[in-house]
Amino acid sequence: MDKLVCVKDFEEAAFRILDNNALQYYKSGADDELTLSDNKDAFKRWMIRPRMLRDVSKRNISTTVLGKPVAFPLGVSPTAMQRLAHPDGECANVRAAASMGTIYILSTISTSSLEEVAAAAPNGRKWFQLYVYKDRDLTASLVKRAEKCGFEALVFTVDAPYFGRRRANLRDGFALPPHLRLANFPKGSENSEALGKDRHSAFAFHDALLDQALTWEDVHWLRKLTKLPIIVKGILLPEDAETAIQYGATGVMVSNHGARQLDTVAATIDALPGIVERVAGRCEVYLDGGVSTGNDVYKALALGAKMVFAGRALLWGLAVGGEQGARKILQIYRDEFDLTMALTGTPNVDSLTRDCVRKYGMTSHL
Amino acid sequence: MDKLVCVKDFEEAAFRILDNNALQYYKSGADDELTLSDNKDAFKRWMIRPRMLRDVSKRNISTTVLGKPVAFPLGVSPTAMQRLAHPDGECANVRAAASMGTIYILSTISTSSLEEVAAAAPNGRKWFQLYVYKDRDLTASLVKRAEKCGFEALVFTVDAPYFGRRRANLRDGFALPPHLRLANFPKGSENSEALGKDRHSAFAFHDALLDQALTWEDVHWLRKLTKLPIIVKGILLPEDAETAIQYGATGVMVSNHGARQLDTVAATIDALPGIVERVAGRCEVYLDGGVSTGNDVYKALALGAKMVFAGRALLWGLAVGGEQGARKILQIYRDEFDLTMALTGTPNVDSLTRDCVRKYGMTSHL
Amino acid sequence: MDKLVCVKDFEEAAFRILDNNALQYYKSGADDELTLSDNKDAFKRWMIRPRMLRDVSKRNISTTVLGKPVAFPLGVSPTAMQRLAHPDGECANVRAAASMGTIYILSTISTSSLEEVAAAAPNGRKWFQLYVYKDRDLTASLVKRAEKCGFEALVFTVDAPYFGRRRANLRDGFALPPHLRLANFPKGSENSEALGKDRHSAFAFHDALLDQALTWEDVHWLRKLTKLPIIVKGILLPEDAETAIQYGATGVMVSNHGARQLDTVAATIDALPGIVERVAGRCEVYLDGGVSTGNDVYKALALGAKMVFAGRALLWGLAVGGEQGARKILQIYRDEFDLTMALTGTPNVDSLTRDCVRKYGMTSHL
Amino acid sequence: MDKLVCVKDFEEAAFRILDNNALQYYKSGADDELTLSDNKDAFKRWMIRPRMLRDVSKRNISTTVLGKPVAFPLGVSPTAMQRLAHPDGECANVRAAASMGTIYILSTISTSSLEEVAAAAPNGRKWFQLYVYKDRDLTASLVKRAEKCGFEALVFTVDAPYFGRRRANLRDGFALPPHLRLANFPKGSENSEALGKDRHSAFAFHDALLDQALTWEDVHWLRKLTKLPIIVKGILLPEDAETAIQYGATGVMVSNHGARQLDTVAATIDALPGIVERVAGRCEVYLDGGVSTGNDVYKALALGAKMVFAGRALLWGLAVGGEQGARKILQIYRDEFDLTMALTGTPNVDSLTRDCVRKYGMTSHL
Ligand SMILES: Cc1cc2nc3c(=O)[nH]c(=O)nc-3n(C[C@H](O)[C@H](O)[C@H](O)COP(=O)(O)O)c2cc1C
Ligand SMILES: Cc1cc2nc3c(=O)[nH]c(=O)nc-3n(C[C@H](O)[C@H](O)[C@H](O)COP(=O)(O)O)c2cc1C
Ligand SMILES: Cc1cc2nc3c(=O)[nH]c(=O)nc-3n(C[C@H](O)[C@H](O)[C@H](O)COP(=O)(O)O)c2cc1C
Ligand SMILES: Cc1cc2nc3c(=O)[nH]c(=O)nc-3n(C[C@H](O)[C@H](O)[C@H](O)COP(=O)(O)O)c2cc1C
Repeated sequence: MDKLVCVKDFEEAAFRILDNNALQYYKSGADDELTLSDNKDAFKRWMIRPRMLRDVSKRNISTTVLGKPVAFPLGVSPTAMQRLAHPDGECANVRAAASMGTIYILSTISTSSLEEVAAAAPNGRKWFQLYVYKDRDLTASLVKRAEKCGFEALVFTVDAPYFGRRRANLRDGFALPPHLRLANFPKGSENSEALGKDRHSAFAFHDALLDQALTWEDVHWLRKLTKLPIIVKGILLPEDAETAIQYGATGVMVSNHGARQLDTVAATIDALPGIVERVAGRCEVYLDGGVSTGNDVYKALALGAKMVFAGRALLWGLAVGGEQGARKILQIYRDEFDLTMALTGTPNVDSLTRDCVRKYGMTSHL
Repeated sequence: MDKLVCVKDFEEAAFRILDNNALQYYKSGADDELTLSDNKDAFKRWMIRPRMLRDVSKRNISTTVLGKPVAFPLGVSPTAMQRLAHPDGECANVRAAASMGTIYILSTISTSSLEEVAAAAPNGRKWFQLYVYKDRDLTASLVKRAEKCGFEALVFTVDAPYFGRRRANLRDGFALPPHLRLANFPKGSENSEALGKDRHSAFAFHDALLDQALTWEDVHWLRKLTKLPIIVKGILLPEDAETAIQYGATGVMVSNHGARQLDTVAATIDALPGIVERVAGRCEVYLDGGVSTGNDVYKALALGAKMVFAGRALLWGLAVGGEQGARKILQIYRDEFDLTMALTGTPNVDSLTRDCVRKYGMTSHL
Repeated sequence: MDKLVCVKDFEEAAFRILDNNALQYYKSGADDELTLSDNKDAFKRWMIRPRMLRDVSKRNISTTVLGKPVAFPLGVSPTAMQRLAHPDGECANVRAAASMGTIYILSTISTSSLEEVAAAAPNGRKWFQLYVYKDRDLTASLVKRAEKCGFEALVFTVDAPYFGRRRANLRDGFALPPHLRLANFPKGSENSEALGKDRHSAFAFHDALLDQALTWEDVHWLRKLTKLPIIVKGILLPEDAETAIQYGATGVMVSNHGARQLDTVAATIDALPGIVERVAGRCEVYLDGGVSTGNDVYKALALGAKMVFAGRALLWGLAVGGEQGARKILQIYRDEFDLTMALTGTPNVDSLTRDCVRKYGMTSHL
Repeated sequence: MDKLVCVKDFEEAAFRILDNNALQYYKSGADDELTLSDNKDAFKRWMIRPRMLRDVSKRNISTTVLGKPVAFPLGVSPTAMQRLAHPDGECANVRAAASMGTIYILSTISTSSLEEVAAAAPNGRKWFQLYVYKDRDLTASLVKRAEKCGFEALVFTVDAPYFGRRRANLRDGFALPPHLRLANFPKGSENSEALGKDRHSAFAFHDALLDQALTWEDVHWLRKLTKLPIIVKGILLPEDAETAIQYGATGVMVSNHGARQLDTVAATIDALPGIVERVAGRCEVYLDGGVSTGNDVYKALALGAKMVFAGRALLWGLAVGGEQGARKILQIYRDEFDLTMALTGTPNVDSLTRDCVRKYGMTSHL
């Protein structure tokens, strides 16, 4: 693991370690996977504008999110079924995040339960990502358990009424191996076994359980159900960010679900500035999708994100080295971000403004 | 065939199945084949703008074309000599289209006759693509037979007074194998045998039969000949769309003949918006060329096409699995389009507006 | 040769046929050869705007240049030492051009003399490309011989006071093989043997004979020397075209010497529109550099060139098949151009206007 | 060495010659090395606008820098530890520069001392690049020694409070081989041995010695310490150039440290025009980063640089042939630049104006 010095190194190593069932599920994007690569490439189309000779001997890269501190502005996106990567799965991941002082978001369709994850890192900051099922009682009970387990916020994912077409999975199928199950649901229930179905109907079966009739009104429904802050995840347009605020969202996460839902939508970093402009400070804006280096974190913050999250990178970390691998990933992001702050003359996140970056190709305003 | 989950998969499979004579004829584009790839690439330069949390539990992806319903807005472009792909050729293709509730366009230079095709799918929607021969009586008789066989419209192809330079065919020649003939012409006639000539003169011989002196006045001539709606196929410029309307065209099909005629013309999806703007609702506008995924269908409709068509994709389907292969292709387009509608919050085609897409690179107006 | 259906096919064949000394000399461009490929690529960035349903049954692709007819608007650029490609060299080339009804430009540093070339095609249209040597008497005598041999115009090359840095030649050297010489100079003279010097000093030696002190005043000097029209070859900027006209040039040839002199200058087709605009009809404008297909000819004429020329393509033709190969190249250009005229609805060169093409990427004005 | 005719040839040769420790250190850039390639590519996005028929028989490519002459406007950037490339290291390099009549900049962390380098080329123009250590006395003594040894200017590097993340070095470590040391520091001192530490802590150890609290006030500190002109190296933004002038910098060097510090900053040639505009003649502006051909030198001067510098190219020269190799590199730059001057009609550097170049893609203003 010593020779792995950047996220990309971990990705390459994980590709060699993971079995095909898990690998195809983790790495795939929708359709032609154009947005999958664009999520990363788009960051590279933004240029950093470094200022020299500012005292950078004392830097502070911590920030606050929803009013509480994080050690650095990158957290862990919710990704399903982390025990496919490593036996310790979600528990290893949340421990890594907690030990690094950042936020872990647990997926609804996790292979460790809310309770297990809470127990693994009782003092870490944890949010719960919520899918809304046709069975609303079931959904409400998930929310209640999240409250009870000390999850601080609900991340309401709105971009996945159905799973996107990930061709490798359509071709070869996907099934949760028999020793794993969706741990947030009662053992033996259809929700729990959904993805353990035969390889070709797994996703369709799970799709059928989700509620496709969701509308913005359901944010009200959630609001009434709980006092937890609600972060709407999966926003790509200013219009939708506006609506989210009007329906009472506490925060908005710019995301295209890691390019797994719709191909040829905006790369998230390209979607960010318009949304930040529209939100105009009325709520916190987060982003995930394609964040691969500390420079990427820097750019997202310069463009107005309060914090960013990474999904797959943590899976690669888990696959390579369990909790320790996940922690190494977070350290890389932190150290790279810290160095970028130093080399750009930005001693703290408040100094990180729109002026710190520019789109390439607009050389007249370098 | 189960492992083939997108049009591209079928294309790759067909490349392995087809003999060289057929493959080169089917796949080639004009000259350097730059427009051939651009037809596809251009779709990818348009970005989808998905709206979240709209009730997509009940979707309606059907539409009407020339006043009558189709199950979904993708039909079959006219491509010549489909029996090169599969013994059932045009008959398999029209049955696939009919069973899926969409439109089949029969080429003039087909290897099954108007009558055979009509008999194969008596209840399916069928249009007839017309080439105008120097022998106008012959041409008129084709029109009359189309009427009699229940074809609903004439698709008047205007971009092919000569065949384009497809280098593979110039190099290796092309000949219709002896067991096939151009079935719309009397057995043994020069029209029927044209493409069965020796490999190097086949196209030149057929060219010589076509009427290169055609002008817009000939739309009048056609109009007088028949009551069938006339769709002018092969329009790339707003000026020509305007003229088509003035000469009484019922519809306009934006097409560059699958990039087989002239290289470095506009990709059809790039040509569409200007034409739609100029037509301004005075007639229906269709498009073919490079449509490869359900996303592409979505984009063309957002940019104003009433319906789109696919040419080669159906040939790949035929080659791989005859009627069933062709049907699978149509299902893929339909399912992908349906999912795109769901994931963009677009429950029916009327909600599909110009605002649903944007050109990449104009990030300020995401 | 039957399987060679486009210029690129001939190029590939010639690469296999030519010895390294000749091949490197012929194919090289200056420095990183970026302009070498850009000369071709730039044509592909221009889009053709085809008009439909115009009577194209009778087409006329001939035009006039300097007041006299050519069968089609592509001629032969001056390239040095054509006997490296084929024993018949310049004589084969000029016969091919004459038989096709177009113009041949003979290089000063040819391996066949003015007199030999004139004798090979007494009735063909021939121009003489002039390099000005420090020895002005020698230069004047070349002009006189050109007049006497029936060359119709002088093509005064202004972009080559020195040879550009073509790395392959710097690396491996170049020498005219012993059985060849620069045939326009007296046998045994230093001018005649210049390029036969040892492989490493050949170009330097020839450079030393040329006059680097040339200025626009020397167009006056030439003007006084001869009644022949003077075409200034090697113009890339409107300012220089303006000056050329002021100093009495009869025509201007937009050229970057086949990208052999300076790397990262404008591709000639990109340089053309600005020059045509500035010249505003005061003289004829020609172009060479990267013309590879009939479409390219079409685009250059649409952008205002009166005629275009091809250099290397004819060398590939010569290498593959001597006179017959060169003629085949000219036929390909002619036939491709003719077909482009037909498929764009342009029955003659007068219908070829600025409106027939557009730069890609300006979709709003398709 | 005769077959090596351009900088790229030397680079390729050096890659085969250097051991991995040295090669990785020399060639690496920060992170994904996007700016590393962009530094070069960006030059190719600028187009040269050549003027014809100007007397170029007598050219003068010399210029003055800080009021004194150089034979041509390319000098040697400071690069650390040149004895990794060749036993004669800095001494060979400075001799090459002196013999060619140009400037050599010595790095603080060199493997030959100020005194050795001064002795190697007593009459050559030499500048000293300064890193500021936490130990200010040590720093001051370096300045004093530079004065005493006849270095004409201080090049104050401001973009490297820490070393950038060069992945190859993080992966494999780097250590100065035991027979070498940082020769400007007392033998056995921690400064001297810093980079000879074990392979994984070498850079961190050196980082710890540098002063990260530097601000613009330290330019004043330097100014008080010495009468030598101070050139601030590592400027990428007009704002910083402005500040540099206000704090008394004698010159500004546009540089991104050879893309070794921060990835996805501006390519230096793209950063240049904005800085030149802001500086508006108040001080000389230099540039380094990606200069690979004489054309590149030409473009930088056209865009307002007074002189440019090359870093790695000289290391490749040293590796291939010691002093002679370094000199050959400088000759190539000079000869290429000289030829560009000739072929563009620019007989001296004063004729080299903003109008001599244009960004590609702005064809309307060719
Ligand atoms: C394997 C995988 C599973 C995912 N599962 C979920 C999920 O259960 N819920 C959710 O809201 N997002 C899910 N996502 C999306 C992530 O939350 C996140 O948006 C995405 O991974 C960010 O992009 P990145 O992987 O490029 O960092 C998943 C993503 C991946 C790759
Ligand atoms: C093999 C082949 C044969 C074709 N034959 C005809 C034809 O006979 N008549 C016609 O109007 N268009 C013909 N076309 C053009 C198609 O109608 C259609 O415009 C084109 O295939 C659409 O592009 P696509 O293949 O990318 O979907 C043909 C295209 C191909 C590929
Ligand atoms: C091998 C070779 C030799 C050339 N010799 C001459 C020459 O003697 N005089 C001249 O004016 N141009 C010369 N040129 C330039 C050509 O006239 C012409 O500008 C160029 O070849 C056009 O580009 P193309 O090769 O892409 O068609 C030469 C070009 C080549 C490739
Ligand atoms: C191996 C190496 C060592 C360097 N060491 C120093 C240094 O000690 N001080 C400094 O100011 N710049 C240093 N630089 C940066 C160079 O001065 C210069 O900015 C850069 O090499 C220019 O880019 P180029 O290599 O593309 O010409 C170094 C660069 C390289 C490649």
